Amino acid sequence: MKPSIPKGTRDFTPIEVARRQYIFSTIKDIFERFGFQPIETPVMENLSTLTGKYGEEGDKLLFKVLNNGDFLAKADPAALAAKDSNGLVRSIARRGLRYDLTVPFARFVVMHRNELNFPFKRYQIQPVWRADRPQKGRYQEFYQCDVDAIGSRSLIYEAEYVQIIDQVFTKLDLSVKILINNRKILTGIAEKAAVLEKMTDMTVAIDKLQKIGWDEVNAILERQGFSPESIDAINALFQVTSLDELENALAGSEVGEQGIQEVRQVFSYLDGYHLKQELKFDTTLARGLDYYTGCIFEVQSLETKMGSILGGGRYDDLTGVFGMPDTSGVGISFGVERIYDILMELDRFPDSNVANVDVLLIAFDASSHLAAFKMLSALRSQHIKADLYPEPTKMKKQMRYADNISVPFVILIGSEELESEAYTLKDMRSGQQWSLSLTSIIDKLQSAGEQ
Amino acid sequence: MKPSIPKGTRDFTPIEVARRQYIFSTIKDIFERFGFQPIETPVMENLSTLTGKYGEEGDKLLFKVLNNGDFLAKADPAALAAKDSNGLVRSIARRGLRYDLTVPFARFVVMHRNELNFPFKRYQIQPVWRADRPQKGRYQEFYQCDVDAIGSRSLIYEAEYVQIIDQVFTKLDLSVKILINNRKILTGIAEKAAVLEKMTDMTVAIDKLQKIGWDEVNAILERQGFSPESIDAINALFQVTSLDELENALAGSEVGEQGIQEVRQVFSYLDGYHLKQELKFDTTLARGLDYYTGCIFEVQSLETKMGSILGGGRYDDLTGVFGMPDTSGVGISFGVERIYDILMELDRFPDSNVANVDVLLIAFDASSHLAAFKMLSALRSQHIKADLYPEPTKMKKQMRYADNISVPFVILIGSEELESEAYTLKDMRSGQQWSLSLTSIIDKLQSAGEQ
Repeated sequence: MKPSIPKGTRDFTPIEVARRQYIFSTIKDIFERFGFQPIETPVMENLSTLTGKYGEEGDKLLFKVLNNGDFLAKADPAALAAKDSNGLVRSIARRGLRYDLTVPFARFVVMHRNELNFPFKRYQIQPVWRADRPQKGRYQEFYQCDVDAIGSRSLIYEAEYVQIIDQVFTKLDLSVKILINNRKILTGIAEKAAVLEKMTDMTVAIDKLQKIGWDEVNAILERQGFSPESIDAINALFQVTSLDELENALAGSEVGEQGIQEVRQVFSYLDGYHLKQELKFDTTLARGLDYYTGCIFEVQSLETKMGSILGGGRYDDLTGVFGMPDTSGVGISFGVERIYDILMELDRFPDSNVANVDVLLIAFDASSHLAAFKMLSALRSQHIKADLYPEPTKMKKQMRYADNISVPFVILIGSEELESEAYTLKDMRSGQQWSLSLTSIIDKLQSAGEQ
Repeated sequence: MKPSIPKGTRDFTPIEVARRQYIFSTIKDIFERFGFQPIETPVMENLSTLTGKYGEEGDKLLFKVLNNGDFLAKADPAALAAKDSNGLVRSIARRGLRYDLTVPFARFVVMHRNELNFPFKRYQIQPVWRADRPQKGRYQEFYQCDVDAIGSRSLIYEAEYVQIIDQVFTKLDLSVKILINNRKILTGIAEKAAVLEKMTDMTVAIDKLQKIGWDEVNAILERQGFSPESIDAINALFQVTSLDELENALAGSEVGEQGIQEVRQVFSYLDGYHLKQELKFDTTLARGLDYYTGCIFEVQSLETKMGSILGGGRYDDLTGVFGMPDTSGVGISFGVERIYDILMELDRFPDSNVANVDVLLIAFDASSHLAAFKMLSALRSQHIKADLYPEPTKMKKQMRYADNISVPFVILIGSEELESEAYTLKDMRSGQQWSLSLTSIIDKLQSAGEQ
């Protein structure tokens, strides 16, 4: 049997795990400095929790877990007779795989509301599953990295996210543009253009602006029955870029003015804070998801054409569906899989990030091998990642292994070395070698490790 | 709708994540010092990879993932007509959830054999799923923590595992007994007792010895048709505890002598190494799993009645089923969920392990709140986990929140403090408070953090 893994899933080799951990730990460190705490939720959720939360398309993309045992005994006979797969699922699958981290987070908050202190600031880095057609850069099993602050309407969180985004991408050595807008401003524009009842159509079209340009956007609006006057008004309003001018343009729209006030407040929190990345107020940022109600965010790479690598915003009723209404929160989600691809493309993973041993011991005969094994403990107790080739076989074979694993140093041990207690340390990159006591070797390896 | 999670699954709150991370990172640090590298495999595996690897009972406990789309279109008509759930699974579910980390590891090694350098030392800490009936301490979704060295018959790995076990449990502040035996010794005993053809029955019975005692074991052997003479021989042989005596008792059994030789070799590698935990050679250690062929290990807690908290051993043909025969390896698996329960029971999690903010800022009015937000950056840039209550609401409410989150320090900021640039730092445990500049506050918090 030739083994394989399901399409759209991946194995991660040590170097890939190390690179992924580098991204995760960079982000986690910054989250924790800002007071966010980790939670984890089960991979399997009840389908009653997941179904209906992601639209009809999302329901189709949920992975469902077959009930164990004689599942057909309780299968819906009508659906079975009609060979109705969709109709049958409910009676043979109670559980499904997590589709995102947002719905499980909302469920978690409601279930644990009495143990949690609000505002509750949590982060969560876990895999999710979607039965999308796999393609380059799109997987059926992939990680999401979410951070949310729930239980307060304070705009300090929006400002903190800008700082977090700024620090994370700076730490990862990437240049990005941080876009901020506010749903209330979009509502204000729709109000001013007298298209409030077609607000969703307008934002869906505007969402495409960056990709397709105004001509195409206007063509879409026209097809959806927007009048020429309202299209003109929409065009004029979205071409206002400064907050001051927009404030004039939206004067009289209460919700629009409130949106502008919120964005101003976020900027005032950031006043005096030295951002290293570009922050831009952009009225044409719309974000697809319906549940956003306040500030919205997006981050774009300035160095690749990777599209959006982060999205988020404020929502006012995420937990309502689980019986806890009127709980405002705000969150962002890092596109960690895309960030990985960008770091690979730009070759920005630090070299030191390779998970590897620091030194390999090579022994020439059985008694040297036994002595070498005992030297390992001395090295490891000094936090040096040391390893020994498992048999005192031909030197050539052992040196080839050392080459293959790209170990930076080897120590050569034979009977003479044992006698003299001076071992040969070889730098595998430069080819330099020294005859040293074990203590001197430890010193040398430790100072090499610190560089 | 009242939300719930599937039986046998768990949410982890921040404190639980922190405690679990403490265990995982303690183990990972030691693994890496010994040159083991992390891999990760997908949660979903093809059922063709998993089925038949865990016995009939295991197949029943596999979670199967329903094919997406119109899965009934390709369902086996005969199985459907007969309402044969077992027979139908194959045609409606291609994938399943990982049942353990051993089979995915074997699959990984075979699939990546050309990229890997052998001996390959890997560790893997990931969740697995089993449709067992949930009960106290037994979950349907739980973590395993495995470490394996594959591609060499060298016994240095057996010796390394003893050192790893010793270091991990010492670091976790737990007292344990490490048991070692060798499958070849069990074979030698069966040979000497002339019950080689009933070797499996013998080891299954002996495996129960510690729980049920000799009388019950002998009753089992009798029921399984062992002759009185062979039962006497088995009893006599298993009562030999020293390696020297056993060597005499097994003289003439080639496999038995080899087993003793291997255990002696492991002890000679450990000679001069100061073990902090108890290591015991125990011929009655059998380990259930059939694939072990050499040394076997088990660890028992000396402080609780939790049973085995680690198991492992050498196998000679784990990868054969995937088309890569004759590849020897040796591995151990830490029972991390049980270790968690023991650390809770004995109250051995370090206090400092609580994921929490170091200091909470409390502001009395809008302008102090804005100033406090800006102070956060100064604190966080010094790696202090600082947070601000999101609104300048009543002091009582903010102090109650500080109490609830068990934050060790708060900083109080009002208009007077802003004016004088001297802020009140309060130690929440002792109640002491000081009026200090921001710089002095940072110094004080940093030295508190180092304690």
